[in-house]
Order: sequence, then structure tokens, then C-alpha cells
Amino acid sequence: MKPAFLKGLKLGNGVLKDALDRDLVRVEALIRDSLRSDQPFIAGLTETVLAPHGKRLRPALVLLAAEQPGASSQAALLAAAVVEMIHTATLLHDDVVDAGLQRRGRPTLNAASGDGAAILMGDFVYSRAITLLVEAELTQVLGLLATTVHRMSVGELMQLDLRNQGLLEQEVYRRVIYEKTARLIEACCATGSILAGAPAASVAAYADFGRNVGMAFQIVDDVLDFEADPHTLGKPVGSDLAEGKQTLPLLLAHAAAGPGERARLEALLAAGAESRQEVVDLVRRLGGPRAALADARRYGEAARAALGRLPAGDIRRALDATVDYVVEREH
Amino acid sequence: MKPAFLKGLKLGNGVLKDALDRDLVRVEALIRDSLRSDQPFIAGLTETVLAPHGKRLRPALVLLAAEQPGASSQAALLAAAVVEMIHTATLLHDDVVDAGLQRRGRPTLNAASGDGAAILMGDFVYSRAITLLVEAELTQVLGLLATTVHRMSVGELMQLDLRNQGLLEQEVYRRVIYEKTARLIEACCATGSILAGAPAASVAAYADFGRNVGMAFQIVDDVLDFEADPHTLGKPVGSDLAEGKQTLPLLLAHAAAGPGERARLEALLAAGAESRQEVVDLVRRLGGPRAALADARRYGEAARAALGRLPAGDIRRALDATVDYVVEREH
Repeated sequence: MKPAFLKGLKLGNGVLKDALDRDLVRVEALIRDSLRSDQPFIAGLTETVLAPHGKRLRPALVLLAAEQPGASSQAALLAAAVVEMIHTATLLHDDVVDAGLQRRGRPTLNAASGDGAAILMGDFVYSRAITLLVEAELTQVLGLLATTVHRMSVGELMQLDLRNQGLLEQEVYRRVIYEKTARLIEACCATGSILAGAPAASVAAYADFGRNVGMAFQIVDDVLDFEADPHTLGKPVGSDLAEGKQTLPLLLAHAAAGPGERARLEALLAAGAESRQEVVDLVRRLGGPRAALADARRYGEAARAALGRLPAGDIRRALDATVDYVVEREH
Repeated sequence: MKPAFLKGLKLGNGVLKDALDRDLVRVEALIRDSLRSDQPFIAGLTETVLAPHGKRLRPALVLLAAEQPGASSQAALLAAAVVEMIHTATLLHDDVVDAGLQRRGRPTLNAASGDGAAILMGDFVYSRAITLLVEAELTQVLGLLATTVHRMSVGELMQLDLRNQGLLEQEVYRRVIYEKTARLIEACCATGSILAGAPAASVAAYADFGRNVGMAFQIVDDVLDFEADPHTLGKPVGSDLAEGKQTLPLLLAHAAAGPGERARLEALLAAGAESRQEVVDLVRRLGGPRAALADARRYGEAARAALGRLPAGDIRRALDATVDYVVEREH
């Protein structure tokens, strides 16, 4: 089965797509090998964690930025495995924090095996990712990714703090999504480029690209929480509101509303769980998701502008198609 | 306030104790500096996490094994801060996993601020510890400690798996406490010694010492859960049983019991929460805690034997006194 990212990528170039796919299969094998355990309990949990294939966007970006898809260096494959492991560990903890019951159309590990198993498996996967980088002596990448993980925890803590508070400033929302989501995608692109031995200007262009893709990615995620088909999305719509998270569609709907609708929106938010569907409906009616999608597209354009600083070719075309995928995806 | 470890250490040599104390104050400052945040929410949680001083056994062992207490190198102070941060992060997650409400006489962070805050603060503290080692380029120590953290998560997962199962084999119990507790104390002693540039034979002796101290430490912890004064212990007695954990006092009581008492113990265990006090009483009556303490003392003697491979002097005397402290402590 091709990862969701490759299925969704509109590349004229089938050769590159197949090459990337071959590498991602090797990345998958690296992840499984690294998480192997002589303890049947741990092996079973690992299977549950790895079974629902994610989009594999992050490892694909490492491999693209390393610029040798199909013939990636061992270091690039390993770094690709590590970023996916970091992402997986983060999801395991986030789902406990948010009491999330479904992800990728399946029960979350906390729902299936309890909070304790999900917390400890997050620690197990994350700490293994770090040891992989140490063993491979990828010091610069280790420095970047360790800092990234630390800042992601800051983003998650900020988000926790902001739950059920008064309406957020947009700038606060943007800082939170940068820390919790965009930083890792930025780091993926920088990592690939560093491992390819690219000059500093290219590493910076890749990082800029990744940061903007990351911002677009999270905003689209937040839009989908208002708009998606729950079946395609793999989890219920309105989950963010249920978890007390204010996202850009809500903030832009509020900004666009006239005084009456604004007061109504605030009252519905204050009323809590029982008026959630009404909030979703009102945010949609006020054009919040559409405006947020336009915002995501602006990040997409900024990402394309960063690409303009890189040499033209197949890789740049693939990264351009990645932007389309990120802003047009339906789950 | 002197850390609990120093207060409990019976050293003839007040000079060494004061020197170690000065270093531990610097370690404490390093931890606080490293966890500083511009986010008031995070700063507040950090304060709650750091306020109840722990024993500081782990950083003290790093500093003793580095053999320059009072004049420790920056690397040794940093490594001492890191091991305490790792320990702290582990406790934060363990308390969520165990739904522990009290530690060191105070509410746990999960009790005070919720599971989400405790999980994310664990991630925040642990990931910062890793970045400290990366920034300081302490590569060998990073490799050792990253592996240690990974194996600790394996130990915690094994413990979770074994909850509420049939009676454990003693060897399984020993493997779990090695992974979850003794490995870090072993790594502390090896770390100090590595940073002092000690020859391989000394690093191995320090590691052996630490492993045995760690085993003794955990067994005494498990004894205290049956025997301690809850006020001195800072948490309720019988917590392990409440969390479905089978520890050495129980296993040795079971092994020592005649057929009738053995059947009664098994029936009480199967009956669950309501018969917990009766289990505690029966385990005590069967001499489980006393036998486990004798077992801990044997690890203490093995630790002293490892010390015999190190040069005589103040440091060795302090490590010897540490063994006394570990097996005689009341909390």
C-alpha cells in the first residue's frame, strides 16, 4: 500500500514517485526494526501503533530534501525514520492529553489499551528515536531534532493553557501551531538538506519551505475539523472545539461577524459542549473555514517562493506538488 | 535546605559533605535555568515540579563518581542536572500511569494540574535534558543516558503488563526493577566516572556499584510501601498493591508461607482492593518486608565489593556511606 502522501501527490513524474515509495518502504522497515522488543506486550503495542499508516509526509520531506529519492543515503533513511517516530510519539501523548478516541479511522492507543500504555509507548518510541541518532552519530541533526521536540512540548503546553480561555489573538494561534506542528516539518526539510551536504543558503530555503508547508498543513487540519467528511477524516468533526481548542476558522469567523452574530458566537462558545454543533454551523455560515483555507494557501505560496531559491528540477517539482497536496487534501 | 540525600548521609567527613552540598546547589540552579520559560503557565508548572526537593541521590552519585566534589567540572555539574531532570520526567509520567496522587508529601502534578499537564511537562523536562547534553557535546554520556531512558520505558511497560497478573517470578521482578530504577543509578555512576576520564576498569567498577545500589534502592522502596510511616514516606502505605504491583516483600512472603497461608494470600490478592489492608498485614506477618530488606542488604554488600576495586579515600568512604543510607532510609 502506498502511503497516503504518495497517493495524494500529483506528480507528472511516476519515476520519482516510485523511487520515493521504495525509500519509504525502507524507512518503514527501519522503524519496525528499531522498535523490535523481546517483550510480547511491547511488540503487540508497537504493532497497534504502526498498523494505521499515516501520511508519511514528514519522512518523504526528509528524503526529498536529501535530493536522492530511490537512492537515499543510510543517514537520510534513518533521519526519515526518526522524524516519523518523533511524530508518532507526539501523537500518542497528544491523544492522551486530548482524550482523543479515534485517529486514522481506528481507536487511538489510549482508547484501545489505556492511557498508561499510550504514555509509556510514546516515551519508548521517542527515546528510541534519540538513540538512533546518537548511534548513527548524526550530531547536527540530533541537535536540531532534540530542540524541535522540546519546542513541540512548549507548543502543546501553550495549547493546554489556552483551552477554554477567552478568544485567542490570531498571533497566539500562529505561535502555537508553529511550535506544535510547523517546527517539525521545517526541521524535516532542513534535516534532509543538511544530510545532503547542501550549502547554508539551500538549507535555509528548505527550512523556509518546510515552515510554511507546516503552517499550511496545520491550518488545513483545523479547517478539516469543521468541514471534512468524518469517514474520510478518520475522526469526528468538531473534535477541536470539543477539546477546547480555538482554531483559525473560528477566529476568522469571529473577526468577520457583525455585532449580533459575534455576540451569538461568544454565547454559544460559553455554553460549552451542548452547543458545539451550532458553533460549527455558525462558523461555517460566517465563512471561517473558507477564510482559513485562503490563509493556508498564502502559506502555500510562501512555501513556493522559498522553492524559487532552489535549483529547478524534479525535486523542486515534487515539493511544489507537495504544497498542492497539503492545501487540497481531504483528510 | 540540604537535600535529603545529604541529610541522611552518615559521613565522618563534614568537608566532603559541604563540598557536595555546594555542587548540588549549583546543579539545582542549572536545572532551574534550563527549564526557564517565557510562558507563565509553563513557568508555574516548572515551579510546582521543582519545589518538593527530592533526595538528589542521582546527581550526588554523578558528582561523587566524578571525584571532585566542591570543584566539579562544568560537564559533571551539567550531567548531574540532566540525570535529575530525567528522573523528574520519569516520575511525572509514572504518576500519571499509576494515577498516583501524592509524592514527597505533596499532591502530584497530575493530581494538582491534570494528566495533560503532567504528561507534557514530562516531555518538556526530558527533551530539555537531551538538548543540554547535545549542546555540551557530551556525546558518550548522551549515548549512555539516551539508551538508559529507552530501557527505563521498557521496564515501565513490563511493569504495566504484569499488573494484576498471576504471581510473578522473582527473576521477572528483578529484571523490571533493574530496567526501571537500577539502570539510571548505574548510568549516574558510570557517567561521573567517564567525565572524570577514569580508566575502563574504574568505570566498570562504578557501574557495578551503581547497579547494585539501584537494586537495593528499589527493593527498599518496595519494603517501605509495606512498612513505612505514611507521614515520613510522603504517600500512603500499600500504594504498590493498589496499583497492581507485585513487589519483593509480597513474593518472599508467598515463598515463605505454608500451604494454608499461601492459599489465603492468593485469595486475598484475587479479592482486589477491599482486602488490601489484609494483604499488607499478612505479608508483614509472613516476614516478607524483613526478608526483602535482607535481600536489599545483599545488593548493598555487592555494591561495597565493587567499591573495593576503586582506590581508597574520601570518595570511596562517601560511596560506602551511601550504601548505608540507601538500605537504612525511612522514606
